[in-house]
Amino acid sequence: MTTRVLTGITTTGTPHLGNYVGSIRAAVRASRQPGVQSFYFLADYHALIKCDEPARIQRSTLEIAASWLAAGLDPEHVTFYRQSDIPEIPELTWLLTCVTGKGLLNRAHAYKAMLDKNAAAGADPDSDVSAGLFMYPVLMGADILMFKAHHVPVGRDQIQHIEMARDMAASFNHLYGEHLVPPEALIDDNVALLPGLDGRKMSKSYDNTIALFGPREQLRKQIMGIVTDSRAPGEPKDTEGSALYQIYRAFADDAEAAAFAQAFADGIAWGDAKQALFERIDAEIGPMRERYEHLMAHPEEVERLLLRGAEKARAIATPFMAALRHAVGLRPLQATSGAKPAQPATKTAASCSFKQYREADGRFYFKLVDAAGQLLLQSRGFESPRDAGQAVKRLQTEGAAALATLADRLELPADGPAPTLREALQALQEAQQA
Amino acid sequence: MTTRVLTGITTTGTPHLGNYVGSIRAAVRASRQPGVQSFYFLADYHALIKCDEPARIQRSTLEIAASWLAAGLDPEHVTFYRQSDIPEIPELTWLLTCVTGKGLLNRAHAYKAMLDKNAAAGADPDSDVSAGLFMYPVLMGADILMFKAHHVPVGRDQIQHIEMARDMAASFNHLYGEHLVPPEALIDDNVALLPGLDGRKMSKSYDNTIALFGPREQLRKQIMGIVTDSRAPGEPKDTEGSALYQIYRAFADDAEAAAFAQAFADGIAWGDAKQALFERIDAEIGPMRERYEHLMAHPEEVERLLLRGAEKARAIATPFMAALRHAVGLRPLQATSGAKPAQPATKTAASCSFKQYREADGRFYFKLVDAAGQLLLQSRGFESPRDAGQAVKRLQTEGAAALATLADRLELPADGPAPTLREALQALQEAQQA
Repeated sequence: MTTRVLTGITTTGTPHLGNYVGSIRAAVRASRQPGVQSFYFLADYHALIKCDEPARIQRSTLEIAASWLAAGLDPEHVTFYRQSDIPEIPELTWLLTCVTGKGLLNRAHAYKAMLDKNAAAGADPDSDVSAGLFMYPVLMGADILMFKAHHVPVGRDQIQHIEMARDMAASFNHLYGEHLVPPEALIDDNVALLPGLDGRKMSKSYDNTIALFGPREQLRKQIMGIVTDSRAPGEPKDTEGSALYQIYRAFADDAEAAAFAQAFADGIAWGDAKQALFERIDAEIGPMRERYEHLMAHPEEVERLLLRGAEKARAIATPFMAALRHAVGLRPLQATSGAKPAQPATKTAASCSFKQYREADGRFYFKLVDAAGQLLLQSRGFESPRDAGQAVKRLQTEGAAALATLADRLELPADGPAPTLREALQALQEAQQA
Repeated sequence: MTTRVLTGITTTGTPHLGNYVGSIRAAVRASRQPGVQSFYFLADYHALIKCDEPARIQRSTLEIAASWLAAGLDPEHVTFYRQSDIPEIPELTWLLTCVTGKGLLNRAHAYKAMLDKNAAAGADPDSDVSAGLFMYPVLMGADILMFKAHHVPVGRDQIQHIEMARDMAASFNHLYGEHLVPPEALIDDNVALLPGLDGRKMSKSYDNTIALFGPREQLRKQIMGIVTDSRAPGEPKDTEGSALYQIYRAFADDAEAAAFAQAFADGIAWGDAKQALFERIDAEIGPMRERYEHLMAHPEEVERLLLRGAEKARAIATPFMAALRHAVGLRPLQATSGAKPAQPATKTAASCSFKQYREADGRFYFKLVDAAGQLLLQSRGFESPRDAGQAVKRLQTEGAAALATLADRLELPADGPAPTLREALQALQEAQQA
């Protein structure tokens, strides 16, 4: 099965060398893995939460798109789109809003951080908190669930948002049947952190960044400005704690890095070391810079690529949203249950549904109930929601045949499954194939 | 100038006689007034907040649409549409979410009522509060602001939502220029309240309703079930406090009502009085019932009418949303600022805005502030938000010339208005004319 991976980039800034090393480079590589279907989107609805400068959002969208394309993202191979080109996203946001408990959002880290900050300042708890900040996890839930993303690569600070998206999927599925796929966070603890000019983590907020695709001469100048100690040429230098060395390491292979470390031990002059670093980075970035500059000078080309990406994305989003609308009751007035899109093909199947849930024992369960809420099948506890989901999937695709395979994960009567259960699974399977 | 009036009906129930007398009949009449452009919409996104029964939402949408059409709403003359056919609505909801303070939503009556209820029950404050309930005023703001509605007819309990929509419009305009038109609540305190079968207000929650378009025989039976006192035929009867009489009054003209009152005084038997009421109601409803039954039997006709209504609505919503997207920075990458649609004509006008609000004295005020929040003009208290709104309107359309006319409603320095105020008003006026 193809794994769907989804990544969003908020369009409020200009990519710097730290973004390249920390996320762009790895993401572009990951997008080329076989068996992976990648979705990359420019999160401009998210940008509106924290940025009320229209020109900056427009500019940043172009810069980020051009940077990713220049860095090798292949829009033919991946789905690369701008969030605000997908009208289904705000619509799904509203559907999810209606199934999300406000209490869940109260517990979001970003919101709680604002509460703490306001408390420390003696201000009203919700001072300076926009509804956008508060609702941000729901928009993110829509981003993820719209494309049935299995994996969302995030930093540890974002795990909670993925868990919230899982909660939203579970609430929706509980009410309306199994439509949404709960995502999993993909945590990479080895994310390369690049030091900035002053040795601290490279970050716009420290004003210590090196532009990713600035002019070549600017790159040289910025590298010449990296802070070093005052050892003279000829004196041996430490690689340990040297920002210069760490940045070099992020671009070099092992042999290059070893040679550079040897040069440090041999007392290379800081000026020569910086020149070497500049050349090493420029060797990797230089060819991309040309493409970047071309794209920045031809925004209409980037626009065209993004619109094509939106078409690809909407080829998934539009029919899926139609099924979700039908599920919640936003239907053509003449539609009968028989005409439901993406719905089970038979009356029996239409009237029964899987419910997934978590018990107090911390384990994950599902059951199959008919329209009247009558229990047809009860699972035993699974370690993870994914395991439970896979069992549901097998029952849906293999029908009653899966009962034997899954026998030890199900509560089945000693004399075998009831005929009504067999019929229901048969109908579900047919619906799946229809 | 044409006044735009907007009314939404949540699609969770079946219209009863109380809905007809209390809102449908008057709204249909109002839609025929000259100089008024009416928007009626089936609020099915709102329905999702409180109803998770898909079939009920679908059915209610059909019943409500058929009822309004049968009652004489002319879809050629008004714009009659289903909210969920307008994808610009959830999109504007998100844009407004980003400019709305969470604190504003904390103060919504419906939300606070839930907090109180939970407090009384000793439950968690946000227990059973969905994000949908919390965000409902923002969706309502999008409904109103999307069509630049001037007037929104509401009950007193809904005034706050209109004020919130005004606040959202002001915040958006302050950040992005004068795009949104602050609406005014249109309060009709003479709304006819129909008693139900048991004499209490007719309401689904009291289970005392008379179906609006049930079968004729059902109407007769329900009317025969109206609670009366036990006076015998021949005994004079009170019209005062008689639900029977009040319902008759809601359908009769003055002469008919006087004759019915005389019959009460003359001791009409309750059975005869009920028969007379049935005949009077059926004389008005009967011809509509036929149309209703036809539409219910032909949902595809209603669907077609709603889709045509959506086209009319989107002829407004789509270009307006494009202007709003541009304003916030969701723009084609090659777009330059010169191409901005619907922007204020001058820098000054863009940078100052009217704020309307209510003070603790219960009166309605407005002020004009510049971009830095500096006060340029302060009003005195008005009796109603409408009066305050009209004064603002005059200042916007007549500019500084309106200062003299409105002098006694404004706090002006003894030596006359400051030059900065005159300039700001001048600019606003030019922007208005542009």
